[in-house]
Amino acid sequence: MPEKVRIALDAMGGDQGASVVVPGAEMSLLRQPDMEFVLFGDRGVVEPLLAAHPRLGAVSRFVHTEVAVKMDAKPSQALRAGRWKSSMWRAIDAVKKGETDVAVSAGNTGALMAMAKFNLKTMAGIERPAIAGFWPTLTGQSIVLDVGASIGADAQHIVDMAVMGSAMARIVFNLDRPKVGLLNIGVEEIKGLEEVRDAGRILRESGLPDFEYVGFIEGSEIGRGVVDVVVTEGFAGNIAIKAAEGTARQFAELLRGAMKSTWRTRLGYVLARDAFAVLRDKMDPRKANGGVFLGLNGIVIKSHGGSDVEGFAAAVDIGYEMVRHGLLGRISHTLERYVRGAGDNIGAAS
Amino acid sequence: MPEKVRIALDAMGGDQGASVVVPGAEMSLLRQPDMEFVLFGDRGVVEPLLAAHPRLGAVSRFVHTEVAVKMDAKPSQALRAGRWKSSMWRAIDAVKKGETDVAVSAGNTGALMAMAKFNLKTMAGIERPAIAGFWPTLTGQSIVLDVGASIGADAQHIVDMAVMGSAMARIVFNLDRPKVGLLNIGVEEIKGLEEVRDAGRILRESGLPDFEYVGFIEGSEIGRGVVDVVVTEGFAGNIAIKAAEGTARQFAELLRGAMKSTWRTRLGYVLARDAFAVLRDKMDPRKANGGVFLGLNGIVIKSHGGSDVEGFAAAVDIGYEMVRHGLLGRISHTLERYVRGAGDNIGAAS
Repeated sequence: MPEKVRIALDAMGGDQGASVVVPGAEMSLLRQPDMEFVLFGDRGVVEPLLAAHPRLGAVSRFVHTEVAVKMDAKPSQALRAGRWKSSMWRAIDAVKKGETDVAVSAGNTGALMAMAKFNLKTMAGIERPAIAGFWPTLTGQSIVLDVGASIGADAQHIVDMAVMGSAMARIVFNLDRPKVGLLNIGVEEIKGLEEVRDAGRILRESGLPDFEYVGFIEGSEIGRGVVDVVVTEGFAGNIAIKAAEGTARQFAELLRGAMKSTWRTRLGYVLARDAFAVLRDKMDPRKANGGVFLGLNGIVIKSHGGSDVEGFAAAVDIGYEMVRHGLLGRISHTLERYVRGAGDNIGAAS
Repeated sequence: MPEKVRIALDAMGGDQGASVVVPGAEMSLLRQPDMEFVLFGDRGVVEPLLAAHPRLGAVSRFVHTEVAVKMDAKPSQALRAGRWKSSMWRAIDAVKKGETDVAVSAGNTGALMAMAKFNLKTMAGIERPAIAGFWPTLTGQSIVLDVGASIGADAQHIVDMAVMGSAMARIVFNLDRPKVGLLNIGVEEIKGLEEVRDAGRILRESGLPDFEYVGFIEGSEIGRGVVDVVVTEGFAGNIAIKAAEGTARQFAELLRGAMKSTWRTRLGYVLARDAFAVLRDKMDPRKANGGVFLGLNGIVIKSHGGSDVEGFAAAVDIGYEMVRHGLLGRISHTLERYVRGAGDNIGAAS
């Protein structure tokens, strides 16, 4: 058996804080027993919960912290108030110091990214980090990035995201050569932002063995699962993933309402319950929980702030997988291969 | 009774061309009898269809054209091959010459926008046109713009879109003071692209009586129907509306599959059929058909290329409404009021 995967938890992050983090981590531990944890948080809150979850407690170390980053704090405020001493900072710092392999937080995304960037710094060869999210599709899931780390992207950043996202896809989907597409719009007149077009050309010409570049895809195609990795800049990516989440929620709400309208539909609902369970399971946003910060010297996973125990457990699972299958090494490996093989193209486009 | 609404039809536009356009126009005519039409297209194709639809034929004039713009032509190609003589150009030109009040086409969006811009020109005070689309929500529909006329938007263009979209919402939703929101992303660190933030400030300070500016909204909120008009630049807008369409289609497909899985779910489906019909109706993309080109000296409506008879009829309905309720006059009116009242703000931001 290899060494254990060591996970730092920001026990104060998220709308529910430790009351979701502690049982969520335990749920994940039961699935992957080769983990150990360091929890950062307020003693009065976390210690009783750890005592109530002895299986987690048995593989955890607890570190008291005085400060919790507020869910609505601006990144600059969070850095000012929380650097060195907040549970969020300390969880990231444990990764920086090599005490853990990954940090998981359900805290404020902007603060988490700001602290992660500040403390871990970007990987050699990567200018800007990105956040990768999961998008449920007809055939399973796709990875979409960037879903909000930064606004705008030049050709180089788009290419970097293709490299990083495909490394993640090789792990998560267990594929040798994931399919990568660039999100674009299909109105011919303007098809292809300059940057997207340049990035597409570079990717096509690079011929890397680590992923298959399949070209542009439109917003309506993501859910069909035609590619494993969808790359776009953070503004459009964030809006797209949220629009899809909102639409799925809205569809479910309309369906629920319609099924309650008459005795016939109610009876139909009872009979078809299994079908609805399948659908619910398939579209369950908790399964798609866990935004992966890519491009930093360390792995940080962002759980949705509002997620429940199961959702947080899914985020911890993702962190585990990323460590166990060597995400950072895979990214560096592709980057090196890429820089050696296709350096001229990069130079020409940037 | 006021004068009839005069509609120019590009009878060759769309995947199915005249075989959808002619019956679609007739369907709309039966709902609004105070219309008359000028159809542009190939004699051999359109005349037999008009003969087979005598109610439409009775209020239509037909003009033979030699050229049909291809669905996959680039705008520059379309202009080169189709200016002066294509059915698309002639339909727009009828608006330009005051022979009709609106043009409706299911043709290639890029070509249609290029020809419309070239021929009609933008309104005084408007730099760039936008395409407004409909987004089905829990409470009805919202208008979203820009869904793909151009990429990127400065503060002034965003403000112009708020003015134009709200004029359209006053007509379509019969509201005195529609609610307008700017699409933004909720990651605090980067909340507010500079342009979006500036536009928000201008709109807040303008205090126009013609709409209520309610602030930023996120992608997940659009489907809840919290605002009547959602404003964003064309790349993100196009991707958002397509992502939502794709998700709704995918949800329906999963539901259909799940309902067929066992005899119990099949029986449940039969019993709950009414509920599914309600849902289908509510999410029917044909009802949301009809992109409205805003900011030009004339009204042009884009029907989806793949839409069926009912979808095309919905696009003609929209064209009728825009004319009947004076879209262009309303936009100009608000623009004038705005420029007079808030000129300093505009100057400061641009």
